[in-house]
Amino acid sequence: MALIVKKFGGSSVGSTEKIMAVAKRVLDEKKPGDQIVMVVSAMGDTTDNLINLAQGIDKDPYRYMREMDMLLTTGEQVSIALLTMAFNKLGHKAISLTGSLAGMHTNSVHTKGKLTDIQPKRVHEELAKGNIVVVAGFQGCDDVGDPVTLGRGGSDTSAVALAGALKADSCEIFTDVDGVYSADPRIVKNARKMKEITYYEMLEMARLGAGVMQPRSVEMGKFFNIPIHVRSTFTTKPGTMIREDYTMEDENFVIRGVAHDAKVAKIAVLGVPNNPGIAHSIFSALANANIDVDMIVQSIRNIEKNVTDMVFTVASGDLPQAKKIVDKVADKLNAIAVLIEEDVAKVSIVGAGMLGNPGIAARMFGALSKAGINIDVISTSEISISCLIKDAQITEAVNAIHAEFFPEK
Amino acid sequence: MALIVKKFGGSSVGSTEKIMAVAKRVLDEKKPGDQIVMVVSAMGDTTDNLINLAQGIDKDPYRYMREMDMLLTTGEQVSIALLTMAFNKLGHKAISLTGSLAGMHTNSVHTKGKLTDIQPKRVHEELAKGNIVVVAGFQGCDDVGDPVTLGRGGSDTSAVALAGALKADSCEIFTDVDGVYSADPRIVKNARKMKEITYYEMLEMARLGAGVMQPRSVEMGKFFNIPIHVRSTFTTKPGTMIREDYTMEDENFVIRGVAHDAKVAKIAVLGVPNNPGIAHSIFSALANANIDVDMIVQSIRNIEKNVTDMVFTVASGDLPQAKKIVDKVADKLNAIAVLIEEDVAKVSIVGAGMLGNPGIAARMFGALSKAGINIDVISTSEISISCLIKDAQITEAVNAIHAEFFPEK
Repeated sequence: MALIVKKFGGSSVGSTEKIMAVAKRVLDEKKPGDQIVMVVSAMGDTTDNLINLAQGIDKDPYRYMREMDMLLTTGEQVSIALLTMAFNKLGHKAISLTGSLAGMHTNSVHTKGKLTDIQPKRVHEELAKGNIVVVAGFQGCDDVGDPVTLGRGGSDTSAVALAGALKADSCEIFTDVDGVYSADPRIVKNARKMKEITYYEMLEMARLGAGVMQPRSVEMGKFFNIPIHVRSTFTTKPGTMIREDYTMEDENFVIRGVAHDAKVAKIAVLGVPNNPGIAHSIFSALANANIDVDMIVQSIRNIEKNVTDMVFTVASGDLPQAKKIVDKVADKLNAIAVLIEEDVAKVSIVGAGMLGNPGIAARMFGALSKAGINIDVISTSEISISCLIKDAQITEAVNAIHAEFFPEK
Repeated sequence: MALIVKKFGGSSVGSTEKIMAVAKRVLDEKKPGDQIVMVVSAMGDTTDNLINLAQGIDKDPYRYMREMDMLLTTGEQVSIALLTMAFNKLGHKAISLTGSLAGMHTNSVHTKGKLTDIQPKRVHEELAKGNIVVVAGFQGCDDVGDPVTLGRGGSDTSAVALAGALKADSCEIFTDVDGVYSADPRIVKNARKMKEITYYEMLEMARLGAGVMQPRSVEMGKFFNIPIHVRSTFTTKPGTMIREDYTMEDENFVIRGVAHDAKVAKIAVLGVPNNPGIAHSIFSALANANIDVDMIVQSIRNIEKNVTDMVFTVASGDLPQAKKIVDKVADKLNAIAVLIEEDVAKVSIVGAGMLGNPGIAARMFGALSKAGINIDVISTSEISISCLIKDAQITEAVNAIHAEFFPEK
């Protein structure tokens, strides 16, 4: 007997036919005595349709953040009601609970809420009555009971956090891919599905561009130490288990995967005085605007004049705002110029095994070099190495590095 | 300074354009210092669309009543969010509250909930902050916090009950007609709009077929003694005030209005033994099936054999079920036959003034007779007289009676 939380995203519940298929599949897989908690997103295009509707009132409806949450939380409420009916129709007791009814408490930061506390008393009660409990993902309520949505990746976060609070045996995240791969299988033909990966490695993969899981829900899994099973909506094969440590020896690769991210832009601030506080003045201005900065490199331009170049990357989406901020700071610092490069991409390798394994970096650079790919910027973390290259070469780069570390058997 | 509750139905908020128009109109009419509480229904076809969606899971989704409430309550949640955005967009502070957040407590009879208690603390708080408070009609929550819908006429009931709990100065019900008329203006060209009508008379009008207001919300108004102003969504003219007593002398007609109802059917149980308990055995069986019975007449068929005929009417929609029940009882009672007539209609006059005014009935029967209309069954209450006639003659009958009591000036 196990308590399992299963999360299905919007495309898995995009129509009543798909909802019936999800219910049937869950019942087929359910072992006698298993307790099941479903966490579901809004159906397919519902959220987009609701946003369009609000744009009939105001082109920028996100100005009214509390009301957007009031509006958007209806999306999951519709899908939990329908999925619960589907379980009933198939002969199994079930009950739907909004985020609020399931005890998902949040702060009051509307449209980007954070879970602050989970009190799943009602969920336990309904499970004890023999119900499959169908909970609205992506939402909770604040101290006064107002609905709050959790922002990007919110439904995964709901599922993992609820699994943690329920002390569930596992949390299964159903997606349109069947697990976590050693590289994006759309780019690398021989990408390998991993049976297991640690929270730490998965976080690094996600941070560096692997899109399967939002870092936030992996962090939640790490916090509660809940194994997260990433698996396919369409097949019953096992997917990838994200957990604290490996349980199997044969998966013990030095490198776990190759991640890439083409949505980056490079900013170079040239010729700034090399004084204490320069980096701080640039990066604190960006941090205040909530812009994440990555791959920071400082290099000396002219020792005699004591001026330096500051190079870093930001997400492409943040570039327009970042540029404005950096231009202003550069002006104050009497920098020579601010250069922008948008045709760049980041390719990274991730693996806890590279710690104390100095040959790894050399093998990565060698693979790129052999493929004729120039490296612009390099940065490293404890368990990753990233290279900035031209974005036109990203497919070649990922394949070259993958072939180096995951040779065909 | 007044506290006013304004209720707008689904057709008034059927699109974002209409929602903007409602917000603009309310702001135009608002006097400085007025406190406004809006109660709104789901947008136009939303409820029907949600029911259609549920029918994709099960042809009879009302089997899952709790889940239907979970589903349908999203309809008003969408409209309150959009209307609140509209007020914001037009520059006025506003906030939306679900039935639950507004403190509308119900019993747990899903899809047909009854309001049990209203605790509008949050509504008062938000009004005190200068907000227009936009509340979801038709819904509340039960003791465990589950959403419950109020059934037919629920939004009017929400509005009047909330007005009562808030001790509002009045409750305005905006509809597609501009008030309560002395007869249905679609049928009687010279029907007069009433400035005032008492709760009691309005209840009788509603019971006898006048469709403007559901009896339930009028009862709620009577209970809280809240004046209900029935007025048009499309004009700013005053409509009809429903209240405890008249404030004006010139409206003191003996008869307040002519109501009619073509959706009735007659059932006659012929030749049943005239013993104590016969009426009870028929009508208790119907009451157990929640079927309302009207216009009961018992007449003697044969004094020597001591057998009698029992005639009564039911709503057309209840006829199939009522027929089954009556056939069964008639069998047991050894009745001669059960006859059904579906081509009947009921025409009624309503007015507190007819009490102790015996000439009124004679005038009504005379008007029908002059028009060549035969009366099948007559029944009376303290403030109404109803006649059952052939439904083909209903327009003629309503006009003849109206002309008798409301002659053209």
